[in-house]
Amino acid sequence: MRTVYLNGAYVAEGDATVSIFDRGLLFADAVYEVFSVLDGRIIDHAAHMARLERSLAEMKIAHEVAGAGWDDVLATLIARNALVEGTVYLQVSRGAADRDFLFPAPGTPPTVFAFTQARKLADNPMAERGMRIITRPDRRWGRRDIKTVQLLYASMMKMEAKAAGVDDVWLAEGDVITEGTSQNACIITREGHLVTRDNGQALLPGVTRLSVLDIARESGMTVEERSFTIVEAQGAAEAFVTSASLFVMPVVEIDGLAVGDGLPGVETMALRKAYIERARGAH
Amino acid sequence: MRTVYLNGAYVAEGDATVSIFDRGLLFADAVYEVFSVLDGRIIDHAAHMARLERSLAEMKIAHEVAGAGWDDVLATLIARNALVEGTVYLQVSRGAADRDFLFPAPGTPPTVFAFTQARKLADNPMAERGMRIITRPDRRWGRRDIKTVQLLYASMMKMEAKAAGVDDVWLAEGDVITEGTSQNACIITREGHLVTRDNGQALLPGVTRLSVLDIARESGMTVEERSFTIVEAQGAAEAFVTSASLFVMPVVEIDGLAVGDGLPGVETMALRKAYIERARGAH
Repeated sequence: MRTVYLNGAYVAEGDATVSIFDRGLLFADAVYEVFSVLDGRIIDHAAHMARLERSLAEMKIAHEVAGAGWDDVLATLIARNALVEGTVYLQVSRGAADRDFLFPAPGTPPTVFAFTQARKLADNPMAERGMRIITRPDRRWGRRDIKTVQLLYASMMKMEAKAAGVDDVWLAEGDVITEGTSQNACIITREGHLVTRDNGQALLPGVTRLSVLDIARESGMTVEERSFTIVEAQGAAEAFVTSASLFVMPVVEIDGLAVGDGLPGVETMALRKAYIERARGAH
Repeated sequence: MRTVYLNGAYVAEGDATVSIFDRGLLFADAVYEVFSVLDGRIIDHAAHMARLERSLAEMKIAHEVAGAGWDDVLATLIARNALVEGTVYLQVSRGAADRDFLFPAPGTPPTVFAFTQARKLADNPMAERGMRIITRPDRRWGRRDIKTVQLLYASMMKMEAKAAGVDDVWLAEGDVITEGTSQNACIITREGHLVTRDNGQALLPGVTRLSVLDIARESGMTVEERSFTIVEAQGAAEAFVTSASLFVMPVVEIDGLAVGDGLPGVETMALRKAYIERARGAH
């Protein structure tokens, strides 16, 4: 039984409930972050916190838990649940109020909760075989740069991948990839350039993406932040995704076509190794 | 203090809570309906139920409350809360499970709740003066035909209307109107034709819209179910919206330009009167 955080208290997961009038439940009016934990410590902590603050600001959700407060919540949850490797999920909604599309009166307390999920991150068997993905039209809303809980389409696409017997879906507008259902999409060209879509409202500004781009640049790799098409990805030397929980994960097949030789790419695996080493070394 | 319905029980509104792991809260993985009540009875009952069943089927949410069960829930809430005029909100989510984009195992019980909201519907002062609306880009997700709780953009646009000092927003893709934030958009041309967008994934198949189209056709009016532009709406003889809680509500201004003579349209008000009479007469 996990201990979770809810509005200032640490409670058993079975006792953590919110009002049916919570706006997260009625209007998807909530933002969240997922923090990965390795060796009991949070990776890319400051960047995730900065993105959370940005999401809250974009949504004009007033929050009373100050920056130091969040840190204490995360540390306490990690300690109480003896989390060594896994994730901490933190959500902030605009709070509970009788149902109305208009935001509730200023002063309505936001609903804040957080919980841990233990899982293997560094030793993920998928890194050995690589992900097989399919592409589907990106039909999400227009502000994907805000990390809101409007995740229904991503959830439906994960189910579609499962039904198709593959690992995940990359979303595309026309021929152009935006990102994965819950990861940023990256390719390495035959010239050895790392290509990933430039940030904007079409995709989430990935925290792991940013760290990996730093590592790539430091290793002398040319990074191109620009759009790329499905066909360009299929013809790339390597492909991979970045996310807080997958780190760097090779993609070996796109819509039934092998990427490169159909095996996890050498450069990709080097980036994965470097990312994990940096995460561990940063402690 | 209202009595609300939650997963088979009738409880005080302050005691109605759901798990923080409810998928409605984490993934906006829930559908809903709003039923209007006039003289203590539900309007367009069967059509709202049919749409709820469609939403559940599209989302592949299994539900155990049979058709007769929903009816009993609504009737009980109306009776216990002595609701004469207002709405009943009913939501069904895919239930609670540890966070995972993939749907939980079959057999996971859905979360069902419902509550009443007393408000004036027939005697709405807005019908006397008409609505002033502005248009904004439609940036919602692609399956607006399913009545899900992914309502964040609509909520944001209602706030934008409020900030602009107008009553609501019509959403447009390019120059073409899809619908209002929570209503279907309709115009009456100078030839006296009622024009409203044809159903499809771009908009919600309105229950009130359907009833009003029936009334219009029966009164001899020509109905055109097709897209129309912002400019066509501004140049129309009359404009109005339909929704479960607004019934037929005149629109007198679009993006600062008066529609017709800037007063609620004669045909529009006749449709509103006929709709309310039919709703009352159906009892």
